[in-house]
Amino acid sequence: MAMTIRHPDFALGTVWLAGAGPGDPALLTLAALHAIATADVILHDALVSPEILALAPAATRLIPAGKRAHGEHTPQLAINAQLIALASAQHRVLRLKGGDPFVFGRGGEECLALAAAGIVFRVIPGISAGIGATTAACLPITHRGIARSVVFATGESGPDGAEVDFAGLARAADTLVLYMARAKFEAIAASLIEAGREPAEPVAFLLDATTPREEIIRTTLAEAPRIARTLRPAATLIVIGPVVGIGAMFATETAFPVPDTVSAQG
Amino acid sequence: MAMTIRHPDFALGTVWLAGAGPGDPALLTLAALHAIATADVILHDALVSPEILALAPAATRLIPAGKRAHGEHTPQLAINAQLIALASAQHRVLRLKGGDPFVFGRGGEECLALAAAGIVFRVIPGISAGIGATTAACLPITHRGIARSVVFATGESGPDGAEVDFAGLARAADTLVLYMARAKFEAIAASLIEAGREPAEPVAFLLDATTPREEIIRTTLAEAPRIARTLRPAATLIVIGPVVGIGAMFATETAFPVPDTVSAQG
Repeated sequence: MAMTIRHPDFALGTVWLAGAGPGDPALLTLAALHAIATADVILHDALVSPEILALAPAATRLIPAGKRAHGEHTPQLAINAQLIALASAQHRVLRLKGGDPFVFGRGGEECLALAAAGIVFRVIPGISAGIGATTAACLPITHRGIARSVVFATGESGPDGAEVDFAGLARAADTLVLYMARAKFEAIAASLIEAGREPAEPVAFLLDATTPREEIIRTTLAEAPRIARTLRPAATLIVIGPVVGIGAMFATETAFPVPDTVSAQG
Repeated sequence: MAMTIRHPDFALGTVWLAGAGPGDPALLTLAALHAIATADVILHDALVSPEILALAPAATRLIPAGKRAHGEHTPQLAINAQLIALASAQHRVLRLKGGDPFVFGRGGEECLALAAAGIVFRVIPGISAGIGATTAACLPITHRGIARSVVFATGESGPDGAEVDFAGLARAADTLVLYMARAKFEAIAASLIEAGREPAEPVAFLLDATTPREEIIRTTLAEAPRIARTLRPAATLIVIGPVVGIGAMFATETAFPVPDTVSAQG
């Protein structure tokens, strides 16, 4: 039959790292849904939406293991150890992360730990928020003639305290998509303007994108730091560039600015 | 039931633009699969894999409408007009694109044309090759401590002949992911090295990623232009940066470097 997809066997004692996408369950991949349906244990981070966790069978053990800026979090080494322990106990272990496991998701570190422990693993890509949240909001991050490059960067410092070269990116990249950048956004915006970006350049804050809690706030680069301070706690993506103006045009034109979710309809 | 996802109604006379992901049908979203199952007509570009097109019901009309570098292509204005004509004839029209419709996919232009014609449309994000192909290959484009930023850029010139500022990106971004960059890769690689990237820096070419035709070729920035000339015609993504070295470590460690596809198993 045309619509049959065959999935690989989720073997006992193995770990699958899967991306859950930006939030809407309809934006899960077929592979991720299969993994959710088949796993014995799901270790999920805080960015996996409750609508997606609700898809797990009742018998599946759900373990929160992740972090949010300024919130509770499980240290990465503890997560690595837990993955290894669960797999060694012959469970089918799903490590479920918001977005894609390798885009600011520390999936690479988990894979290194699993490989070192001799645990067989598999990685399933997901739609990272930088693409899923923006496209669902009709915000074309590489609109032709306006943007030929887009950079995804994090506002958090590296383990060595190193920061992203925002001034350099301001000069070289057409569209900037920032993850986890609310806390340092005032300094980031200042360095972008100092490096030559227009204070009037449009900026969008995408909060809890593609979920029933979604909010999109449009402003300018000059105003954005003030707005950022007023936002409620939420998974937040910040998009900077002329393409944000295109997105604003669509928002008034289409009846479907955002994919429907289970909760929005059910 | 836990596993039920309710999708919005695909109304007659509307257009859905959906991303088909990098190639493997298991990396389709639930929303895209629903769209493929429900559409009357599918206008697909050349990057949508045959494995995915095979999922369409037998009665669905499939129309190729896209382009490949240096190959046949349908002009963008003709595609826009065809979408409008099919929707005006009260079909359920699916515009299916490889990857994500707004990441170097010209989906924004199609949305502008549809909005101007008063056609109701909806956009469904997909996994762009820059993320799907890399993550499936265990290549963590933002591995912590090694890369805090990743840029997606196109090797093609804009409609105004403008080029990406590769030298600026070379200095500011940790990882570079290049789409449609084979034709100009010799010049791009030279400008990256001139801007300070190491000639020994690892580079990966990902060909037809996540399909049964997938090939991953690893080399160095200095050697890459010579390798690029020898590659067979294929959907090609080029990844440049220290993270490519991490990917190479995994490839020998895991039993699952790539998600299984229908064809690989069936």
